[in-house]
Amino acid sequence: MGSEILLREDSDGVCYLTLNRLDAYNALSMEMMQTLSAELDKITEDISVRVVVVRGGGKGFCAGHDLKQMLGEGQEAYYQATFDTCSELMQRIVNLPVPVIAQVHGVATAAGCQLVASCDLAVSADNARFATPGVNIGLFCSTPMVALTRAVAPKHAMELLLLGDLISADRAAEMGLVNWVVAADELEGYVATVAGKIASKSRKTLSIGKQAFYKQSEQTLAEAYSSCARVMTDNMLTDDAQEGIDAFITKRKPNWSHR
Amino acid sequence: MGSEILLREDSDGVCYLTLNRLDAYNALSMEMMQTLSAELDKITEDISVRVVVVRGGGKGFCAGHDLKQMLGEGQEAYYQATFDTCSELMQRIVNLPVPVIAQVHGVATAAGCQLVASCDLAVSADNARFATPGVNIGLFCSTPMVALTRAVAPKHAMELLLLGDLISADRAAEMGLVNWVVAADELEGYVATVAGKIASKSRKTLSIGKQAFYKQSEQTLAEAYSSCARVMTDNMLTDDAQEGIDAFITKRKPNWSHR
Amino acid sequence: MGSEILLREDSDGVCYLTLNRLDAYNALSMEMMQTLSAELDKITEDISVRVVVVRGGGKGFCAGHDLKQMLGEGQEAYYQATFDTCSELMQRIVNLPVPVIAQVHGVATAAGCQLVASCDLAVSADNARFATPGVNIGLFCSTPMVALTRAVAPKHAMELLLLGDLISADRAAEMGLVNWVVAADELEGYVATVAGKIASKSRKTLSIGKQAFYKQSEQTLAEAYSSCARVMTDNMLTDDAQEGIDAFITKRKPNWSHR
Repeated sequence: MGSEILLREDSDGVCYLTLNRLDAYNALSMEMMQTLSAELDKITEDISVRVVVVRGGGKGFCAGHDLKQMLGEGQEAYYQATFDTCSELMQRIVNLPVPVIAQVHGVATAAGCQLVASCDLAVSADNARFATPGVNIGLFCSTPMVALTRAVAPKHAMELLLLGDLISADRAAEMGLVNWVVAADELEGYVATVAGKIASKSRKTLSIGKQAFYKQSEQTLAEAYSSCARVMTDNMLTDDAQEGIDAFITKRKPNWSHR
Repeated sequence: MGSEILLREDSDGVCYLTLNRLDAYNALSMEMMQTLSAELDKITEDISVRVVVVRGGGKGFCAGHDLKQMLGEGQEAYYQATFDTCSELMQRIVNLPVPVIAQVHGVATAAGCQLVASCDLAVSADNARFATPGVNIGLFCSTPMVALTRAVAPKHAMELLLLGDLISADRAAEMGLVNWVVAADELEGYVATVAGKIASKSRKTLSIGKQAFYKQSEQTLAEAYSSCARVMTDNMLTDDAQEGIDAFITKRKPNWSHR
Repeated sequence: MGSEILLREDSDGVCYLTLNRLDAYNALSMEMMQTLSAELDKITEDISVRVVVVRGGGKGFCAGHDLKQMLGEGQEAYYQATFDTCSELMQRIVNLPVPVIAQVHGVATAAGCQLVASCDLAVSADNARFATPGVNIGLFCSTPMVALTRAVAPKHAMELLLLGDLISADRAAEMGLVNWVVAADELEGYVATVAGKIASKSRKTLSIGKQAFYKQSEQTLAEAYSSCARVMTDNMLTDDAQEGIDAFITKRKPNWSHR
């Protein structure tokens, strides 16, 4: 399985997806994007998964698109297909019923940085670095920008996009691009702890919440309250809420129907 | 008056509202939400009030909804009424003509955390803690999420919503959920200073500004500039702006018509 | 040229615009706003400019509108013209094809603070201070608010707007209102370095990216991805992207057609 471009390992409700194009710094070739999208589609239907971790094998997280492949094809239709496929992949992460955590080491650049921005949570090694360097090669990181500007403040996004420089993990945390920065040798353990906590929740509940999160974020305040009050009522009527509240009141561990 | 569930105390234009269900960690029972809403309606018409402070009596700020009450009723219509009443309460804070400051000590969880997020400003004791722990009991904090996602960055909101853990006051300040963190024994004095400053402004001016703030935040940039340029012109024509500018130029203290 | 209210100096693709009403703390009089707008219009057409720096001459950046001038005119139509002209100026910065950097020393208040918020990037001297103090004179900073609320979190914006106090450069950086805080005597050099980096990019690429940045920020996620995937394809087809990618792969410096 080590020769495949995407590795999957499941453990107690946590699904680890490891980008595995070590010689290309895990670049998002067309094949990589399609393989990752297909795996996310499987996870959508797989009720044993309660949280996904995306990470890179080898020396770093992900270096973005595969420029050599793109130039090699060299046609408008291929470029458009590349950016469309990438945009669909990123939206698949947002629309996935379970949370996705980015586990970042080495560098995350261009579409690799977009991948971090698109995840629900991110944990970074303290020596990891982030960039949207397209501007340096005449190709502004316009699709990474979509995810980036929804994750951080506008001037912070512009800082990355206009200069194209690598920023530190600490700067990324200040911006809100990552949640936690930990020592490189503690990264895997820290992610396992965060993922384990989320995997202990009800899948049904996580799914209701994540779906409502992104939907209401594009609504006005009044619309958002109207739709989310309904979401909470429906959530309250689920087996898992009735079980969870009873467990809380009787001070015992809940036993979810929908793990 | 100590037996009432909501205490009100007015002092020089500052209205202190203290949640007073000490045995229930100030949980937002249906009665509490209705009482608080009714008091906010009175304040809307009470021109002697220029700023509101919301705080909790006893050991903490507010622990959210009253789960025992909700389970006791146990019907869809009651759940929906609870979340609708809560949503209306939070929007009443946003739509109130005068600013609202949250004064937080102990913990602020679930709808209690939503209450902090819904206020215009927040001051926190350094040992206070915040959480949206619904996910732990199978009931995702979907209505708290509406306020939370409008206060902090998406990954920060997800951090609270997906893990359900208590975060520190310092972390809440990094996220922008609270403005200031002060020593617990200085909390009351700090809030009085902030509230006193706001109470020294013109009520008319505060009201014009707060109303425009939330309206323009849901508009495009061009729409927002168009509506706010008109707001500023109208503001400029008020007695208080003419008085304030004259006082500024002649280096004296302004004497507001609309306190 | 020292007697003009706006000074322009160009150097290797960097255009420095210096507000030069030293006796009025560079207040944005009607003439100043019109002069600045006219210069920005020239820059739009001037392909030799790849980045603009806005700064203030004398003791500080900019103290906002010219209150004496406004009161002197004292008519509704004049007020409206002032706020409309200011709103158009700020949107001209947002819509300019090249990035704009605010270089801030001394104080930036009211419409001066709005000017900082409206720029794509901002560098501040460590002893600079920021405020939207209109509330102190009965005139809420409602048009500055439009730019401010799009730059920082809501509670941070309210902190500035409701209190009207000066905040430090460090606090402004925490909020995301400025990107970098540097020692006062290193301000000019730091800005020159940042501007120089941006000026080394392709003007065409900067222009594509900046235009897409603000457009997609007002779209839904799905719309933004759809429009930006098209933007990237078009960008990929430009001479400068083909040149930049080839230069990257062959490890040489790119030679832009559209500087």
